[in-house]
Amino acid sequence: MLFFTQCFGAVLDLIHLRFQHYKAKRVFSAAGQLVCVVNPTHSLKYASTRCAAAQTSTEQGVLPPCHHHEAVHDPQLVPCMCPLFSCPWEGHLEVVVSHLRQTHHINILQGAEIVFLATDMHLPAPTDWIIMHSCLGHQFLLVLRKQEKYEGHPQFFATMMLIGTPTQADNFTYRLELNRNQRRLKWEATPRSVLECVDSVISDGDCLVLNTSLAQLFSDNGSLAIGIAITTSKVHNAEAEV
Amino acid sequence: MLFFTQCFGAVLDLIHLRFQHYKAKRVFSAAGQLVCVVNPTHSLKYASTRCAAAQTSTEQGVLPPCHHHEAVHDPQLVPCMCPLFSCPWEGHLEVVVSHLRQTHHINILQGAEIVFLATDMHLPAPTDWIIMHSCLGHQFLLVLRKQEKYEGHPQFFATMMLIGTPTQADNFTYRLELNRNQRRLKWEATPRSVLECVDSVISDGDCLVLNTSLAQLFSDNGSLAIGIAITTSKVHNAEAEV
Repeated sequence: MLFFTQCFGAVLDLIHLRFQHYKAKRVFSAAGQLVCVVNPTHSLKYASTRCAAAQTSTEQGVLPPCHHHEAVHDPQLVPCMCPLFSCPWEGHLEVVVSHLRQTHHINILQGAEIVFLATDMHLPAPTDWIIMHSCLGHQFLLVLRKQEKYEGHPQFFATMMLIGTPTQADNFTYRLELNRNQRRLKWEATPRSVLECVDSVISDGDCLVLNTSLAQLFSDNGSLAIGIAITTSKVHNAEAEV
Repeated sequence: MLFFTQCFGAVLDLIHLRFQHYKAKRVFSAAGQLVCVVNPTHSLKYASTRCAAAQTSTEQGVLPPCHHHEAVHDPQLVPCMCPLFSCPWEGHLEVVVSHLRQTHHINILQGAEIVFLATDMHLPAPTDWIIMHSCLGHQFLLVLRKQEKYEGHPQFFATMMLIGTPTQADNFTYRLELNRNQRRLKWEATPRSVLECVDSVISDGDCLVLNTSLAQLFSDNGSLAIGIAITTSKVHNAEAEV
């Protein structure tokens, strides 16, 4: 009986996912982009506790997760950049992607333009929606975070980070786009490197910021569809000059 | 002696304005748009006191400034829509523009694409930056407001309103664009009619919202340049269908 109940639940989940996929496709139908449904992960740490942990670990002689590239002696060795967990892992930049996939089960998507469909936007802060995005020969980490910077007033912060060095990150431009009910909001910027802590990017506010009322205006039945596009900025500039 | 001091002050002001104009031109130089320097006006009222005043005036049988179109018997007669003052004026929609120019000295600019350069962004909330914009045969009111929705956390709200009816407003799309330091933020929406209260648009958050850190990222020496473009949405849709 329990088996049948679970099967029924799984079928309902599939129908729900299919419905959400259809909704996102409808929103961005013109572009014919790949839609990825991203479920939330309730963050296991606060930014503040993590920074405290980082400080403690520095005192103990362990590498801190934030601003790691400033303190480390071997610049090729980086700690786990997954913003969800205080993970003790560290390794070379080249193996960050496989660590995030295997240990933290973060999906990776291919394609220059994709749609990130974050579900259950109503969940209380702190909550993260994370995905990896492979395009133009590099891997990017997209983080959408619901956080209460000011107590009782949750906001949404979205940013894209390159799994690479800051110099490599300078070659790209990412665009996040919300589009619903005759309203459109676009944010374009150079991605930061994962060597810079995602917590500091969010606390600086150097990302797409949505307050709850704007997030509700762009959401459809509790899900927020974000169109993502990545371009190589230097090649574009060079073309413009020619 | 006082005369010479004043003259010197006026010359300094002119140099300062010229410098700001040059800065804005540099930011949006590619588009070759008209740049308008807009000085702040410290708001003489809070949204809340105005709404209270509106409620009191309703009780006394006077037309309320907010949601006027729902309560008024003669839909052609509207109160003063200037969001800065609790002005007792009322008149027909056709004479709102001349009232705003003559009584409140709000500038009017011509052209489909202009740059609105708001100065002195550091001034404490509540502060408004207002301009009228004449284009496509209609007049629009652009309001940038610095307001503390949450005590101690000022935010910037920018919206465009048509000096016309909600049905006329549906024919247009306005775009506000910030562009600085390899970052770009665009907001596109249908303008609201001035018959809807600007206070309610801002409290709904259905506009471009910037927190202080984002506003600082886009500001240059205390001034924020906002590129404005207005298009006719229905004509565009009809063209797309053809």
